[in-house]
This record gives sequence, C-alpha cells and structure tokens, in this order.
Amino acid sequence: MSTELPDLRPGEVIVAAPEPRDAALVFIGRIRSPFPDCVACPRQGSLSGPECRLELDQVWWPALKGLEPATRVQVLYWLHFSRRDLVVQNPRGKLSGTFAIRSPQRPNPIASSVCVVERVEEGALVVRGLDCVDGTPLIDIKPEWCPHA
Amino acid sequence: MSTELPDLRPGEVIVAAPEPRDAALVFIGRIRSPFPDCVACPRQGSLSGPECRLELDQVWWPALKGLEPATRVQVLYWLHFSRRDLVVQNPRGKLSGTFAIRSPQRPNPIASSVCVVERVEEGALVVRGLDCVDGTPLIDIKPEWCPHA
Repeated sequence: MSTELPDLRPGEVIVAAPEPRDAALVFIGRIRSPFPDCVACPRQGSLSGPECRLELDQVWWPALKGLEPATRVQVLYWLHFSRRDLVVQNPRGKLSGTFAIRSPQRPNPIASSVCVVERVEEGALVVRGLDCVDGTPLIDIKPEWCPHA
Repeated sequence: MSTELPDLRPGEVIVAAPEPRDAALVFIGRIRSPFPDCVACPRQGSLSGPECRLELDQVWWPALKGLEPATRVQVLYWLHFSRRDLVVQNPRGKLSGTFAIRSPQRPNPIASSVCVVERVEEGALVVRGLDCVDGTPLIDIKPEWCPHA
C-alpha cells in the first residue's frame, strides 16, 4: 500500500501547517475490515454493511465491560494516509473549505462513524457500519448516546 | 483551574496505559464558551443552548469556505483535564467499562458534539450545542453529513 500523499487537484490550496505536537494519541487497537485498500472502501459505511472487527490491545480489554449487542456506538479511527495541510479541496470539481466537507484530508485526520454492535468477544467488538481500510488504527469507542442522560 | 487528575471512586480500575505517541494532533484553535469551569458546564450540549465561538488559528481560515448558517456540524475537541488510564468507571454507583459510557476520562480524550452554525465570521464559527469549558482546544469541524453523499 502506498504511503505517498495524494496529488493536488486544480484549485486546491495547501498551507504551511504547524507541526502537530499539541497532544498525542495512543492507538488502542486495529480495525479488521474486508477492504484491503482505499479503492475497495465504500464512500460511506452502512449499518447493513459487512462485519468489521475492532481488535483492542490487551491493556484496554476491561474497558469493554457493559457493551451489548445491538447498541449503536461511535467509533473514532485514524486516517493514516491523509495529508494534513490542505485547506481548500476539489473533491469533484467544486472547491470547498476542508471544514465544509468530510474528506479524509484534514489537519487532524480523525474519522467518526456510527456502527451497530453485532457481538462482543474477548478483547474485540464485531460491528457493522465502517468504511475503512483493513488495519486502520483505532482511537476510541463510545455509545452514540449517553446511557445515563 | 486545577490540572490535577480526578480522584478514583469505589471500584474504578486504572491500568499502566501505554505512552501516547502513536499519532500527534495540532490544535486548530480554541472554543470560547460561557462556561468558566467544569462545574459550570451542562452534562450535554443542546442545539438551543448558548452561543459558543470556534476561533481558528489564522493558517486554517481558508478551510471555512463553504460553511453556511443553519448547517449542522460535528465538532471535535480535546478534553485536556482527563485522565487516560481509567478502564472501569463508577459514574454514579454503576461500574461500566470506559467504552460503554461517554465519560471524558478515556485513553484518547476526544469529545464529539453536533452543533448548529449560527454565523460564519472571519476566522471563526459561532455555534450552539457545545458543553465545554471556555478555552477548550479545538481539533476539527466537519458537516454532520457528507454534502455530496
């Protein structure tokens, strides 16, 4: 899989982006999906899409306690093939600011998808609703709504 | 404002969390809210709540192009007063895994809220729907739905 940054398209604007060093993330695991590369990924996940497996590093396994099948969860993951200096983009012939679109190219390439839990396994969660490449780093899992609200 | 970590409550479990050094974030600006500290914050934001101002660092101003009033945006921000090693929590007498609740204490303390845009100003976005402390670091802004989907 290539790790080169995507080429610029007509009218796109990059900036001298500040060094990303204001806060640091720990990858809590990896996402196993049936999509081997970006070309194979759907444009958006679907709750009726294929099963994906959120495999947590062992230190975080106790944090799954209380998650149940059929719950809707918000999954945050890291789009590690993105460029981070693009402020105006040309997704399909229409120039837009990065904050006006959901492109993976953004200053902090964090994706957020709502998924439905199929099964809870030891150290893993099987969900539907993701659109990402196999091996994508996992950042967070939380219920879509606060259960105590 | 205190920067000490919150005390543990009965039954809560912390782990020897890995160093957070898998990816790095750049703060793209700050959130100005009417809430001076955590005690003053509502438990959840409301689309009819008070106005908050997302003030972007100047390098990112062109990325606002195309955002319009009344749009619903997803705002990601950094909960800089959180502890990151808590895997089982006791929010109100019920033990839950961190990934089963929306607590700010999590391995990567990123909050996600849906807001409605009131106004677009030069280098800033005025929104309703946030629940965070004045001065909270801003990570990302994106439309709730993909406008091209």
